[in-house]
Amino acid sequence: MENPGKLPYASDEATNRMVLRAVGTIKNMVKKPFLIAGDRDIEMQGAIDDMRDEIRESHHAMSEIVIKKAMTQLLDGIEHYSHLVVFYWAHKVPESSRLLTCVHPMGRKENPLVGIFCTCSPARPNPVLMSVVRLRGKKKNILHVSGLDAVDGSPVIDIKPYVKDFYPQIEVRIPDWMQKLCKEMKDYCE
Amino acid sequence: MENPGKLPYASDEATNRMVLRAVGTIKNMVKKPFLIAGDRDIEMQGAIDDMRDEIRESHHAMSEIVIKKAMTQLLDGIEHYSHLVVFYWAHKVPESSRLLTCVHPMGRKENPLVGIFCTCSPARPNPVLMSVVRLRGKKKNILHVSGLDAVDGSPVIDIKPYVKDFYPQIEVRIPDWMQKLCKEMKDYCE
Repeated sequence: MENPGKLPYASDEATNRMVLRAVGTIKNMVKKPFLIAGDRDIEMQGAIDDMRDEIRESHHAMSEIVIKKAMTQLLDGIEHYSHLVVFYWAHKVPESSRLLTCVHPMGRKENPLVGIFCTCSPARPNPVLMSVVRLRGKKKNILHVSGLDAVDGSPVIDIKPYVKDFYPQIEVRIPDWMQKLCKEMKDYCE
Repeated sequence: MENPGKLPYASDEATNRMVLRAVGTIKNMVKKPFLIAGDRDIEMQGAIDDMRDEIRESHHAMSEIVIKKAMTQLLDGIEHYSHLVVFYWAHKVPESSRLLTCVHPMGRKENPLVGIFCTCSPARPNPVLMSVVRLRGKKKNILHVSGLDAVDGSPVIDIKPYVKDFYPQIEVRIPDWMQKLCKEMKDYCE
């Protein structure tokens, strides 16, 4: 490590802590997460039909990714990508939910109880969430994107290019419950 | 926030710091990163032909993801996926490289100088890297995977399921230099 402790966000190896610094903030109309993380499981917020509507809307809704002005240069050339991978912090997830081990995916009891690492649950040991978004425009330090599944005010951790070649296309297998969820999502959004 | 400050890795909102806790460690034969991050750019380690060989090998090489024993339950059901998305910390990247703004992708001067967010550079404000891997086996708290592009000893931050439906398949556009890099990689690995 060069200059350990020099930066305010130096990783603290002695205690095995890695410290993230927000590179920006997400702005959109989503004020509450779909899923509420508790101490024992995750729960859907409201009725399932409302959630379907919200998922459908969020699929097309616009968000702004406001990058810190001092970091504007890190976006140089980004307009040549159609899609980006956005990493953000699930800031509405309470600390205690980071200790959850198993959940019913989507908070629905008809799904089997599975380990957190088998799910996209926002409650996880490190609540770093990821969305692949469509880049619709860029103005200085602000990106306009659609398909960003984040709550307003979420701190942005990273932006990476979306390159299809990096993602396996064949021989991909997922469990039955996830297959069912994917089919439902598709039906909502088409 | 429930019980703020109770956990040793509570996020520190007052200073805008988000603290990650390692959920495990990566074990493999890769002792040095392909790319060395400096204060001004990234550089390839060794000659380009060596790197090609290393990329080809790492594509097929096995890694172990050793999850902390106390977190074994978080893997329940993971064997029903063929592929996983692994988030890990680039622990070999010096702190000062987190301040880089632009790099020549892959450390090659023939690539244009672009903003960090347009690249997969390990040197970035938050060195959280991501690999989609093939799950080859599981034994208690250890996953055997191939295709994990990480250095031995990297702290694991998260494991998510790889679900092809979450990734756009059509109308995906990338810059020319990235297209060229992808073609090269494909040629090495086939």
